Formats: sequence, structure tokens, C-alpha cells
Amino acid sequence: MSNQKSNRREFVKTLGLGAAAVSIPSVAIAKDKKVHQWKMVTTWPKNFPGMGTGANYLAKAIENLSGGQIKVKVYGAGELVPALGVFDAVSRGTAQLGHGAAYYWQGKHPATPFFAAVPFGLTATELTSWITYGGGQELWNELYAPFGLQGYLAGNTGVQMGGWFNKEIKTMKDFKGLKMRMPGLGGEVLRKAGATVVNLPGGELFQALKTGAIDATEWVGPYNDLAFGFHKAAKFYYYPGWHEPTAGLECLINKKALSELPKHLQESVRIACEAANQNMFSEFNARNNEALNKLITKHKVQLKAFPDEILTTLNKYSKEVLDEVAKKDALTKKIYKSFLSFKKQSMSYQKVSEQAYTKARES
Amino acid sequence: MSNQKSNRREFVKTLGLGAAAVSIPSVAIAKDKKVHQWKMVTTWPKNFPGMGTGANYLAKAIENLSGGQIKVKVYGAGELVPALGVFDAVSRGTAQLGHGAAYYWQGKHPATPFFAAVPFGLTATELTSWITYGGGQELWNELYAPFGLQGYLAGNTGVQMGGWFNKEIKTMKDFKGLKMRMPGLGGEVLRKAGATVVNLPGGELFQALKTGAIDATEWVGPYNDLAFGFHKAAKFYYYPGWHEPTAGLECLINKKALSELPKHLQESVRIACEAANQNMFSEFNARNNEALNKLITKHKVQLKAFPDEILTTLNKYSKEVLDEVAKKDALTKKIYKSFLSFKKQSMSYQKVSEQAYTKARES
Repeated sequence: MSNQKSNRREFVKTLGLGAAAVSIPSVAIAKDKKVHQWKMVTTWPKNFPGMGTGANYLAKAIENLSGGQIKVKVYGAGELVPALGVFDAVSRGTAQLGHGAAYYWQGKHPATPFFAAVPFGLTATELTSWITYGGGQELWNELYAPFGLQGYLAGNTGVQMGGWFNKEIKTMKDFKGLKMRMPGLGGEVLRKAGATVVNLPGGELFQALKTGAIDATEWVGPYNDLAFGFHKAAKFYYYPGWHEPTAGLECLINKKALSELPKHLQESVRIACEAANQNMFSEFNARNNEALNKLITKHKVQLKAFPDEILTTLNKYSKEVLDEVAKKDALTKKIYKSFLSFKKQSMSYQKVSEQAYTKARES
Repeated sequence: MSNQKSNRREFVKTLGLGAAAVSIPSVAIAKDKKVHQWKMVTTWPKNFPGMGTGANYLAKAIENLSGGQIKVKVYGAGELVPALGVFDAVSRGTAQLGHGAAYYWQGKHPATPFFAAVPFGLTATELTSWITYGGGQELWNELYAPFGLQGYLAGNTGVQMGGWFNKEIKTMKDFKGLKMRMPGLGGEVLRKAGATVVNLPGGELFQALKTGAIDATEWVGPYNDLAFGFHKAAKFYYYPGWHEPTAGLECLINKKALSELPKHLQESVRIACEAANQNMFSEFNARNNEALNKLITKHKVQLKAFPDEILTTLNKYSKEVLDEVAKKDALTKKIYKSFLSFKKQSMSYQKVSEQAYTKARES
């Protein structure tokens, strides 16, 4: 500001106008009107329902809030970098922004899944609360600082479904030898249960399930699963998604690029993420409601609950898997401790609030 | 823009500089750098935990997002206008912004409670989803248009508690003659149950309960209730808050003032509300967890669940009360229909998602 002002004064003085020019009433001096051309790389196919449209919403919000000072071009997975190259691309500054899920970066640090999803972990509301008011954001900052990255929560799917199965799951024995697609820590839990865990990209799942190359797959929830047509490849749709009680999605920001923005635009990026986080969760909630209805009534999907005995065992295995992860280093241990403590308090509170209420209104 | 530009040209021409002036490199022409001095009147005491701090957060977000073009001065209840004068003040333009809860304006239109809380209605997540992706916002726009107001969701308390009681509530008979504070439609339900319903402002509740002038009161939830010290005036703390499964809080905006902003600032006000909505809900979740813990362990509060028989009966009475409200006019009927349809779908979906999951992880 001061520089531009003195430049203007300089120019005006040169012209011999002197102080009179100060009274120019309608010429405002813009503080920093540099237009920032930003790229957002994402781990989703372009415009993918929920996740991809959520990334678009975030990009648009950042643009709108900047009053035209930030332009964001969104790239689908593979357009500029591969889906799993997003973290590195934003860390290097190839793109200023990324949209994905922190559990994809487990290879970078074992603690990343806590900011997206872990088996039997936090729900969308809890994850958001832990990050915003439970100390989670500070831990996340610490985790990403060595990579030159700022992470903000920027989307949530809500509780996912347990997956599509070509046979019924009645006891833990039914997992023995079951070929199921499940990435990440959930997959490690299934491995303990004796399953043959495979990882396949989303686009190959339908065919693999249809041809019997796999017996089961998890994906997201009714809204996304209906779009993929899984009901044409498997009979049984299980709930709940114990392995992903939500997937918290993230906005990755290159810290150097962020620091080059004026302060109020730095803050606007954070607020855009906060708004986008809620907006996507609302979209999933509204659309999941509609889609599940359609799956059951129109496509005659057989909705099944995992038996209690199975959930109890998977819960036990999940704890073992997380305990092992937490042993890997001091920061992961610290994050796990904070996460668990929030989960414990919240479980106690949810019993007297949402759980008690949603049960009561069914009466 | 065009006006300011031509003014500048006019001025420059007058000085005989002509086209040369166009090349001034560092003098940017701001589109609309007018600083808008806005007032936000609220229905809360200044800085009241949760609600008041949430209003502050919103005001700050609007300021930050505007890059200094909007200044917002927040007024607590009674500072500029009384709490219940907020709607009229923003409608008239005395203040450009208001922060409160739509159910306070039932006297303006019987449909307003659907955008805040109705007995056995939507939870925070559901209310937000209905408004954002279920058609709720469009109906809200229709409802507030005649008042020259734009309403946006800008806060949620989450499921409230059932209230503080000086005697145990074991059967419906215990409500007969019970003097309880409960405003709004919840109060009408209690009246059907035979209670003597009183309405008192928050600041008088503790004394009234302590002296026995009332037998019971509802307020919000552990975070707010602990601050008021109700545990020193009543023994039993009941759940769940069937009468307010959340209180959705609103930002009221004078439409004329909003229309005078450049387009991107109009959008920034909406996005600030979206972010503030989530932020407050997160605060309540994190703080309620902590506060309930303290109430039980430190203050030895007796936490009690309403018996199922009571909840079933209150649910039935609530439906009767809402059905009566919906009969009042065509718009209320339309809003109620949309609200109920969303609730029905969501209840079916929650059973296989959050409810199933939160039950499973207790195992």
C-alpha cells in the first residue's frame, strides 16, 4: 500500500499537480490487485459426484471470496498429475491447491489417516469438531509442516456403507478367503479376519465384481454406489461402514503460495474450506437419502446389517491395527492419543444426545 | 465501475492530461472500494458462549472476507434493540445484519420454527442438509421475502438436553401441574401433557428454579447449562431434548443493504454464514463433551433418560401440534410437507448409517 501510494504521489508530483491530486475522490488505490492464477489438482475424476463436485464448490468459493484476485483451475485425477501424485505436486508447488483425502498419504507419514478415516473412528461431525475445537488442526499443522503444506478439512462423506457382497456374511468365518477390495487400515483389519484383501481403483470395481474376480467391494455410500451401478453386480448391500465412519476430505495448500496472498485472502481460503466441508457433507446426506430409497424400492437391493458378533470382532481387530500404527513414531502417538480422547468423550456425549434422540423419535 | 472510471477520465481530462493518464502503472482502479459500516444486532447477551461467540465469529468472517470493505459492529441483546426486536430492526434497515433463531418470529409467521427447531424435528446435520440440498433455502427465501429479509443458517446447537428437574419424571402423570419453562412449540406440547408452561428469559431461570417458583426448566445443553450453574438449583438432568433436536440459528440480512454490495461480497456473506454454521456446531460438540463430563464427575449431577413411554407420548403430541400449525396457511403447509418428507427419508437413512455405526462401535 505505502509503496503504491508513494509511487502515485511521485507520479503526480512529476506532473506538477502536487497536493491537489490527493483530493481525487473516486480513484481508490487498490492494496494488492495482483491476480493469482492457481491450479487445484484432485484425487477424483473431474466432476465426480460428491467429491469432485465438492472440489469444484471449493474452487468456486475461493474465487468468489477473492473478488477476482484468485483464479482456480480444477484438474481431475490424471489430468495434470496422477491421483496419488497430488500430495507431491502441491508440496513442490506444481499446483497451489489439492483436493483429496489424507489417508492416501500414509506412505508419507503413518499418522495421515487420522485426518481422513480410520476403522471405528470419528464420524463427520466428530472429526470436524476434533479438528476445529479439539486440538486436531494444530496437530495436522505439525504433521504437514515438513512438507511445506497446509491442510484444511474440506469435505466429508458421512458414514459409508459396509460394501457390496456376492454372498451373505453371517459369521467371521465368512471372511476367510473372501476376496474383497478395501484399501488402507480397513484392509489391514480384514486381513486379520482372514480375507484376501485387494486394492483396485474405483473405475475397475464394477467389472471385477461382475466377473467374480472379487467377491466383495466397499466404495462410498448410496449416492456414489448407485452411480457406479454396483447393484447390477452384487446382491447384498451391507451396513454400517465400520471401516470409514466418514471420509474427511482435505484441501492441501502450498504454504509458500498461501503466504504470498494478502492476509485477508489467506483467511478467505480457510473459510472457503470450512464452508465447503459442510456443503459437501450436506450434499451427501441429502443425496444418500434419495439414492438408498431408489436402491431399495426400484433396484430391489437386499440391505443387510453386519451381525453384532462380527462388528464386535472387527472393532477389536481395528483397535489392534491402530495401536500398531501409533507405535511407529512420537507424533503419530500424540495424534492417536488426542483422537482417542476426543472419541471417548464424544461417545459418552452422543449417547445422551443424538443417539438418544434419534432412537426416541422412532417411537 | 464504469461510473468511477468515467469520473476519473473526466477529472484527468479536465487537467489536460488526456490519454497519458491511462498508463499510470501502479494506480489500480478499485471496482467498489466503498467501506460499508454494518451493524449486527443479536438475540444473545454479548459474547454469550456458543451463540454469542458464534455471532462474533460470523461478524469477523464477513469482515475478513471483504478485505476491509465491510466493517461489522456486533450488538448484544438490548444494546441497540431488545432481543425480540432483532427481526424488525433488520427488516427496517436499522441494522443490516441480525443473529438469532427463526422460532423467535412465530408471531410474524407460523412457519418460522421449521428453520430453527420443532419438537421431534430434524437434527443439526439434517436441518443443514434440508436447507442446503433439500429445498429448504428456497422455501425460507419465500417466507422472508415479504419482510425484505434474507435468512441463512449460521449456527447450530446440536441436540439439546431435556432440562433440569427438581423431581423425577417417571410417567406422564408427573407432568400434570409441573411448572416448567419451555418457550415455543415445545411448550405447547407440554401444555397438552398437563404442565403449567411458563416463559422466562434466560437470565431469570436460575433464581426461579432455585426458589421453587418453577419446578423445571430447559435451556440448551451442558456447555451453556454449566455456565448458568443450573446444577446448583436442580438435581436431575434429563435427556434427550425432544423439543429441540438442534436449534438452527440464523443470520438475518437486510436485502436492500445486501443488494448494494458488489456481487462477490454478496456471495461472501453467504459463504461466511455457511462456515459459521459449521464452526458453531463444532464448538458446541467439543464443549458439550467436556461440560457433561464435568457435570457428572465434578458436580455429581444425576443424569436421567426420559422413559420410553413418555417419549412416545410426547412424540404423538408433537405431531398433533405441528399438524395444527401447518393448517394455518398455504406456505406453512408447503414448508411442513417438504420438512416431513426430508425427515422421513433421513430417518430411514440414519438407521443404516450413523445410528447403526454409533451402536456398533460401542460393542
